[in-house]
Amino acid sequence: MSEEPIFHMTPDEFRRYGRAVVDWIADYYERVESFPVLSRVQPGAIRASLPAEPPLHGEAFPAILRDVGELIIPGITHWQSPNFFAFFPANTSGPAILGELLSAGLGIQGMLWATSPACTELETHVLDWVVDMLELPRKFRSDSTGGGVIQDSASSASLCALLAARERATRYTSNDKGCDGRLVAYASSQTHSSIEKAMKIAGLGRNNLRLVEIDEAFAMRPEDLARQIKRDRSLGLVPCYVCATVGTTSSNALDPLPEIGKICGEEGIWLHVDGAMCGTAAICPEYRYIHAGLELADSYCFNPHKWMFTNFDCDCFYVADRAALIQTLSVLPEYLRNKATETGAVIDYRDWQIPLGRRFRSLKLWFVIRHYGVEGLRWHIRQHVELAQQFARWVRESDRFELAAPAPLNLVCFRHVGGDTINERLLDRLNRSGKVYLTHTKLNDRYTLRLCIGQTHTEARHVQRAWQLIQEMATEVEQEV
Amino acid sequence: MSEEPIFHMTPDEFRRYGRAVVDWIADYYERVESFPVLSRVQPGAIRASLPAEPPLHGEAFPAILRDVGELIIPGITHWQSPNFFAFFPANTSGPAILGELLSAGLGIQGMLWATSPACTELETHVLDWVVDMLELPRKFRSDSTGGGVIQDSASSASLCALLAARERATRYTSNDKGCDGRLVAYASSQTHSSIEKAMKIAGLGRNNLRLVEIDEAFAMRPEDLARQIKRDRSLGLVPCYVCATVGTTSSNALDPLPEIGKICGEEGIWLHVDGAMCGTAAICPEYRYIHAGLELADSYCFNPHKWMFTNFDCDCFYVADRAALIQTLSVLPEYLRNKATETGAVIDYRDWQIPLGRRFRSLKLWFVIRHYGVEGLRWHIRQHVELAQQFARWVRESDRFELAAPAPLNLVCFRHVGGDTINERLLDRLNRSGKVYLTHTKLNDRYTLRLCIGQTHTEARHVQRAWQLIQEMATEVEQEV
Repeated sequence: MSEEPIFHMTPDEFRRYGRAVVDWIADYYERVESFPVLSRVQPGAIRASLPAEPPLHGEAFPAILRDVGELIIPGITHWQSPNFFAFFPANTSGPAILGELLSAGLGIQGMLWATSPACTELETHVLDWVVDMLELPRKFRSDSTGGGVIQDSASSASLCALLAARERATRYTSNDKGCDGRLVAYASSQTHSSIEKAMKIAGLGRNNLRLVEIDEAFAMRPEDLARQIKRDRSLGLVPCYVCATVGTTSSNALDPLPEIGKICGEEGIWLHVDGAMCGTAAICPEYRYIHAGLELADSYCFNPHKWMFTNFDCDCFYVADRAALIQTLSVLPEYLRNKATETGAVIDYRDWQIPLGRRFRSLKLWFVIRHYGVEGLRWHIRQHVELAQQFARWVRESDRFELAAPAPLNLVCFRHVGGDTINERLLDRLNRSGKVYLTHTKLNDRYTLRLCIGQTHTEARHVQRAWQLIQEMATEVEQEV
Repeated sequence: MSEEPIFHMTPDEFRRYGRAVVDWIADYYERVESFPVLSRVQPGAIRASLPAEPPLHGEAFPAILRDVGELIIPGITHWQSPNFFAFFPANTSGPAILGELLSAGLGIQGMLWATSPACTELETHVLDWVVDMLELPRKFRSDSTGGGVIQDSASSASLCALLAARERATRYTSNDKGCDGRLVAYASSQTHSSIEKAMKIAGLGRNNLRLVEIDEAFAMRPEDLARQIKRDRSLGLVPCYVCATVGTTSSNALDPLPEIGKICGEEGIWLHVDGAMCGTAAICPEYRYIHAGLELADSYCFNPHKWMFTNFDCDCFYVADRAALIQTLSVLPEYLRNKATETGAVIDYRDWQIPLGRRFRSLKLWFVIRHYGVEGLRWHIRQHVELAQQFARWVRESDRFELAAPAPLNLVCFRHVGGDTINERLLDRLNRSGKVYLTHTKLNDRYTLRLCIGQTHTEARHVQRAWQLIQEMATEVEQEV
C-alpha cells in the first residue's frame, strides 16, 4: 500500500474547525439583522467571485470558512432573519441545527430498517408523537392501519399520495401497464402548484386536474367539486384524487374538509390534505378546528420545516392505509433483500417515498420536540399568531390599506387601496430597503402583499417596524404615482 | 404581547451545546470500530426504549445528547465504520459534515435564484468544476446547452431524466394529456431498481420497461438493445429512454456506452447514464475509460455521497439539453413570480427537480473539493481501488473462493465454491460477528458476496482483517455443512 499522507481532516482538526463553524453560526444569528434580508447581488456576481478551476491541492479550512463570509453571504437571502416575512417561512432552531449536524456525523442510510433500525424506529415513534401533539386522527398512527414518514417536502408527499390514489383507482394496475388517460384529479385554483407538477410527473397530465371553484374566502366550494365529479363520471372518466388545503399558499384559506371528505367518501376518491405551514398551529388546542374533518382524509402532510423550528427538509406525511402506499412504491431487488424485511415485522421506509436513500431526519425533529416540549412550541406558535393578528388589526384600522382575505392564523394578505401599481412599487421599495422581505400574490386578480409571521426570532418589535416601514414607504410611493 | 419566557436556545447555549455535539461526533469516529457494524437490535427494541408520550415541557440538551448515545447508538448500523463493506458506501468526511452544519445554520431555501442567489450560483459553479474534474463531456457544463444540478439521489435523477425523455418523445404533450401507454424504455437486468420504480411513478408502467440481455460480464448487450427497439417499433410502440450503467449495483458491470449511445443517437432515444458510485473514479485519469462514450448521452448522474466523501444527499445530475428538463418540470404560480426569473438570466433549480424546496447542498461539496483538492481526492480513490484489487487477488489465489464477476474498481463479487448454502451461512456469520458488514447479490442465479471498499477510513488493515475473518468463518461453516 502507498505510504503517502492521508488527506482526511484529523479528529483534532474536526474538533477545532467544528467549534469554529458553531461559533460562526452563533455569530451569524447575532448579526443577521444587519444584512439586507433580500440579497442584492446581480445575476452572475457570486460565480464571478469564484475561481474558474477547482483547486488541485487542498486548502486550509479557515480560508474556506472565511470565503463563506466574504463570497457567499452577499448572495444569501436571509430566511433566518426576524425581518423575513416572505412566502411561507422555513424556520429553524438551535436543537434542529444540532440534530442535523448529528445526522450528518452519523452518516447512516435509512432506506431499510436493517440499515439502521434506530433511524426507522425513531421516525415512526416521533411521527406517532406528532399525531398526538396535533390531535390528528388516530388512523394516521403506526399502531393503526396507517403511519407516518418524513418526506423532503409537501410536493413529494402530495405526489406519493397521488400515486397511491392512482393505483387504488386502477386496482394497482397503472404501475404495471401505465396510465390510460381516464384518471382525473381535483384541486382549487388556490391549491399549491406542486399538485399540477405531480399530475405531470405521475403521467396523469395537467389537463386532467380540475380546478374547483372557490368562495369569497378563497376556499374550495364543495358543491362545485361534487358537480365536476358527476360530470366527469358521466364522461366515462375516473375521479381518483382530491387535494384539499389547510392554509393555502396565497392566503391561508381553509378548505372545508367535512364537506369535501363526505363527497370523497361517497365517491371512493382519495382525499389528500395539504397543511404545509398551518398544520403546525394544531399543536395549540384552540387552533385545532383547522383540521375538522381530517378523519375523512386518506392522507395528510404538514411541514415542521416551515413553522415548527425544524430545518428543511422535514415534511410529515401520513396515510390512513399504509398498505396502499407500500404496494404503490415497493420494488425489491435481490441486493436489498434481508431477513428483517422478509419477516414483515419492520418498516422499510424506502417503500414510502420516491428516492431509495434517506437521511436520519427524525433526529432533528426529536431534538426540537424534546428541547421545546409541547408547551414551549405552543407558546411560540401563539406568539406568531398573535403578532399576525395585531398586524391585521392595524391594516383593518388603516385608511390606506385593506385586508385582501381573511387572516385566520399567521399570514396577512393586504393591499394599498390605490391599485396594483402602487402595491407593486411598494413591495419593490420595501424589499430593496433590505429591512424586510415580503412577497406577493394575486387575489381576485388584484396584486396583493403577503406578510407571513413564522421566523423563529420574529418578535413584536420586528412586526411593529415592518408596519412603520410599510406606512412610510406607502407615503413615498403615493407621491410618485 | 406576552411577557412569558422565550424557549429558544440562546446563542451561548448554542455555542456550548454545539461544541458538545462536535466533540460527540469526533469521539464517535474515534470509537466507531468498537461497535458491531450491523446493528443487533431486535425489531421494536428502540421504540420500546422511548417514552410513549412527547414531553410537555422542554428538556435539557445534555440529556437529549446522552440519549443519543444510550438509546440510539445500539440501533445504528455503522455506515461510517471502516469495516463497512456492504451495498455501495455512503461515505462522508469532516469538511462535508461541517458544510452540512453550515447549510443547516444558514437555513435558506434555494428553490429560486432570488431566494438565495449564492445557493444557485455556487451549485452551478461547483457542478461545472466537477465536469472538469471528471473530464465529463463539455455539453454538461452550464456554459453550454446543458448544466448540472444536485439531486437527493440517483433515483430522483433517473426519474427526472425519464420524465424529460417521456416529454421529448411525445413533443411535450404527455405533461398535458397524460401518458398513452405506447412509450417503452430499456435497461438491463442489472440496472438499479430505481428505474423500475421510475417507470411506475412516471405513469409508463413497469411492463413497458424492457430488460436487455447481458453478456458474461453482466454488461448490457447492444445488439439485443437494437433488436428490442426494432421489435417495439414494429409493434407501433415508442421507444423513449435507455438507462445504461457505469458500475452496476450488483457487480460494477460497465455497460458499453459507445455502442449503446450510437443506437440511441440513430433512434432518437434519450440515453441516461447512471454512474452512481463508480463515476467518482473518473477523477483519476487512469479510470476515465469508464465514461468512454458518455458524450453520446443526454443525461448522466453520479453520487459524491457514495464515494466522494460528501454526506448524503448529494447526487450530481447533468443534462445535455437543459431546456428539455426545464420544459418538463416547470410550473410558475403567481406567488413565485419575481423579476430575476422573468429576465431569464438566472437558473431556478426548482424546475430541475421533483420537489420545490431545496437545501444549500453545494456548500458541502464545495468544502470537500477545497479541503482535499483534486489530488487529495485522487489519492484516496486510488487507495480504495488498490485495496479492492488486492482483495480480488487474494480471492483469485484462494482454493476455496472464486471471483463471481470482473472487479474493475472497488467492488469485489466473490463466493465460496461450496454453493449457495455455505455462502448464505458465511455472510450471516460474518455480519453477526459485528466485525464487518457485507451484503450479497445473485449473479447467474448464484448467491454471491459483495465486498465494496469506499468508506472514508477503510485502510489496508481493515481489508486484511476482513479477508482473515472470511477465511476463518468459512472454515467454521464448512465444518457445519
